[in-house]
Amino acid sequence: MYGYTMNKKDLLDRLRRIEGQVRGLQRMIDEDKYCIDILTQLSSVSAALRAAGLGILDDHVRHCVQESIQQGQGDEKIEELLLAVARFAGR
Amino acid sequence: MYGYTMNKKDLLDRLRRIEGQVRGLQRMIDEDKYCIDILTQLSSVSAALRAAGLGILDDHVRHCVQESIQQGQGDEKIEELLLAVARFAGR
Amino acid sequence: MYGYTMNKKDLLDRLRRIEGQVRGLQRMIDEDKYCIDILTQLSSVSAALRAAGLGILDDHVRHCVQESIQQGQGDEKIEELLLAVARFAGR
Amino acid sequence: MYGYTMNKKDLLDRLRRIEGQVRGLQRMIDEDKYCIDILTQLSSVSAALRAAGLGILDDHVRHCVQESIQQGQGDEKIEELLLAVARFAGR
Repeated sequence: MYGYTMNKKDLLDRLRRIEGQVRGLQRMIDEDKYCIDILTQLSSVSAALRAAGLGILDDHVRHCVQESIQQGQGDEKIEELLLAVARFAGR
Repeated sequence: MYGYTMNKKDLLDRLRRIEGQVRGLQRMIDEDKYCIDILTQLSSVSAALRAAGLGILDDHVRHCVQESIQQGQGDEKIEELLLAVARFAGR
Repeated sequence: MYGYTMNKKDLLDRLRRIEGQVRGLQRMIDEDKYCIDILTQLSSVSAALRAAGLGILDDHVRHCVQESIQQGQGDEKIEELLLAVARFAGR
Repeated sequence: MYGYTMNKKDLLDRLRRIEGQVRGLQRMIDEDKYCIDILTQLSSVSAALRAAGLGILDDHVRHCVQESIQQGQGDEKIEELLLAVARFAGR
């Protein structure tokens, strides 16, 4: 149910698929496909990229952030994390 | 530089300001103001809401999540956090 | 199926409901409710605001933009529209 | 100042650059680079993709939508446009 935990291989597979989708977008533009279809495809690439980002974030919190907190040095990592979340949320 | 740490009073002040902005939007619609001006205002309410959300997230990670991890019970909190980030990122 | 067309009354109703939700958020913070529940509520206010924004955008395109184009003066309106969409998309 | 108008070549160039950035992300993951740096890079790929999307949207409104309206057949195109904007805004 909780789908953000990804190992390195999962992440690489996802990014390879995203790379393929980006090439697909180039092909659609090259062949003058209908704009709305291109946009729909582009929106799904964006969603796939976000899902990969959540996987990376998950891994980061479970490892780096958790370990820093366990060693009593969480403050800097938490600050850095929040800045990354703000950027990731696209703002 | 890092602006997401807010205390309870800061957060309440921000949300009261947001409430006022939402009333402002109603007034603009009521007075048939120009759509683009209404949309610009609405986009800035959205941004203010997101900033408040980041403040809540910051507080949550610094307190609840950090304490759970220190007590060796971080896993559930981390899972819950990531789901909240995914929702918050609007996806 | 296509749910963005709203008249003035719909829009005002929605914004009043959003105003109530923002007051609900203040109450939750005031009563020290659990952060994740507050964030979930905040995410749903954001979604409601975006839906209202799409309603305003719909109205704008169907009226202002369409009329300008019909009068052969669409260019400026289209430029303005795209800028508003970029802002609205939160970027 | 208004930067969304792109011709076919611009769009293809941008998408090729995005493809390169996605390959860069794979390399970063493969070399176990720091999560936050990967996320920062991923956020900038997302932003580049959104900019390309706005370029496609701009082109679509300036041509397809404008022409349909001029031929008195704008309604369907406008509906389709708004649905695409809603999807593009990631919601």
